[in-house]
Amino acid sequence: MNENAKSENYNSSQNQTDNSSEYRVGIDIGGTTATVAIVSTKGHILGQATTHTRDYKTPEDFTTALAGLIVDLKKDLPEGTRLIGVGIGAPCANSSTGEIEAATELPWPSPIPLRRLMEERTGLPVAIANDANAAAAGEMLFGNARGMRNFIVITLGTGVGAGIVCDGHLLNGVRGFAGELGHVTINRHSKRLCNCGRYGCLQNYCSASGVVTTAKQLLSENPDAESILRDATELTSKSIYDAAVKGDKLAIETFRITGEWLGFACAQYAAFTDPDAFIIFGGVSRAGRLIFEPMEKAFEENTLHLYKNRVKFLPAGLPGADAAVLGAAALIG
Amino acid sequence: MNENAKSENYNSSQNQTDNSSEYRVGIDIGGTTATVAIVSTKGHILGQATTHTRDYKTPEDFTTALAGLIVDLKKDLPEGTRLIGVGIGAPCANSSTGEIEAATELPWPSPIPLRRLMEERTGLPVAIANDANAAAAGEMLFGNARGMRNFIVITLGTGVGAGIVCDGHLLNGVRGFAGELGHVTINRHSKRLCNCGRYGCLQNYCSASGVVTTAKQLLSENPDAESILRDATELTSKSIYDAAVKGDKLAIETFRITGEWLGFACAQYAAFTDPDAFIIFGGVSRAGRLIFEPMEKAFEENTLHLYKNRVKFLPAGLPGADAAVLGAAALIG
Repeated sequence: MNENAKSENYNSSQNQTDNSSEYRVGIDIGGTTATVAIVSTKGHILGQATTHTRDYKTPEDFTTALAGLIVDLKKDLPEGTRLIGVGIGAPCANSSTGEIEAATELPWPSPIPLRRLMEERTGLPVAIANDANAAAAGEMLFGNARGMRNFIVITLGTGVGAGIVCDGHLLNGVRGFAGELGHVTINRHSKRLCNCGRYGCLQNYCSASGVVTTAKQLLSENPDAESILRDATELTSKSIYDAAVKGDKLAIETFRITGEWLGFACAQYAAFTDPDAFIIFGGVSRAGRLIFEPMEKAFEENTLHLYKNRVKFLPAGLPGADAAVLGAAALIG
Repeated sequence: MNENAKSENYNSSQNQTDNSSEYRVGIDIGGTTATVAIVSTKGHILGQATTHTRDYKTPEDFTTALAGLIVDLKKDLPEGTRLIGVGIGAPCANSSTGEIEAATELPWPSPIPLRRLMEERTGLPVAIANDANAAAAGEMLFGNARGMRNFIVITLGTGVGAGIVCDGHLLNGVRGFAGELGHVTINRHSKRLCNCGRYGCLQNYCSASGVVTTAKQLLSENPDAESILRDATELTSKSIYDAAVKGDKLAIETFRITGEWLGFACAQYAAFTDPDAFIIFGGVSRAGRLIFEPMEKAFEENTLHLYKNRVKFLPAGLPGADAAVLGAAALIG
């Protein structure tokens, strides 16, 4: 059944301090790969296995394979180990219905009743959420938001997502679509068309492709400005970052503008849930101070006095490679 | 002690169906008057008394007087009646700290430890909130949001406030300043200076004075347009409404623009908490369809597809005169 799956068990030195016999299962489902991990109550990964999403003809087969991986991984755990639930992070996952809706990355028609299928196959409680909400749960349980009851995680990747925690609760909303902050219109007069069909969403400025658009715009508006980006065969947010690190002024300006838009947006977002912190996550956020400095400056310049100098901006606290499965595991309360 | 207070007890016919012996106290504190009411579990007012806020030299004297009014009102209730708590709606009330902060309307220096003072004087649990949050609590318990777990109340008055309920919780935030939606920048290029020191807040477009500013702008931009507003000695949102009802095109256009800004704002706000409904409350909202029609149109035109045709716009469900004390009473869970 799991011939296309590989599994790996390891013990980190940290596990030695982690004596609980209760474990969570965290599953990260992507368009190519699905990863299953057994996670301790302190956020250590005890075992991990992967399989290829597209190798399965139906969601039923796929979830049967995932359940098989859990059983395989559990074999290597000590006697008396108890799994308390399965958390799944997946694109377009609706926490309220337990279904995946219109996920173009996955090879099966929507809606996919993922929660029900996994509950039937494992006999365990199952929670599902989109990537940004799983990231928020992970930061709260294992990461930089430990002990915080009010924060907003913003993920800057192919798109821009958000997970909002207010008064200790991860917000879902009536249809499970709370926290779509990447699609707040931050520039009503923008000519940047979003994949949602609207113009001027935050995502058009702060996603990986938003960064590239900003760089291209700067190159075209400043034909005389020297920049190593001018000679690049293909611009990506990574290549623009590499140029910025080398001191390329136009690349640095690209991230300054990106951070400024994000800071302006967060200045507005603070008025909704009065957060302690924004936690900035995902590929584009790796630009570090190139994006954090202009972001924090724009936040302080644009926010209401009630929030001024009172909101922290933090990078994600979960290790990049494991963040997705740890966040998924954290969905089990 | 309460010589400047008058009290009044009445029974509505509705009370006959309301047999619980548990009652809440709702108190609405304004700059001029404070109103104390005894409220049944079904939202009927059993007795009501008022006093003049400015007649008291200290918050200690003021809260002693309020506690006296509660005792007076309780005398007239049936034997066996139990008061389960006191909810207070007041300007700049911080739900988290229980204090009133920087309320320019009140005659005492801030912060005022209102919750502690009232708890000491009544021996009852006390909850305090600002007017918009109290309105949200009232709509959820007694009004148009009964049975709803996700909605946003927006109050259009001297200012613009909001109370956000998500997943059944009234959002507070880390410092109790969640829901300051009147101070979200909706027009970054605006020349309208807000009392918060920033430009282009929702409040500058949709408060009573925002409506007047829009009308004045239309009058000045259209010098040839006929309008009875041109002859008015003083413009108010009420006089503009009266003109609109008489068919004055410029007055109607004023409310259309107001509704359009509000609908655009709500289109963005939906992305935070994925609400079932917006409930629009306060003086300006009395313009009814003059403001609701353009608001709903702008919402549908500007919101993300996830929320399109799925969010209701409702007027407040609580009777105007009693809304404040009913909302305050509803703060007691």
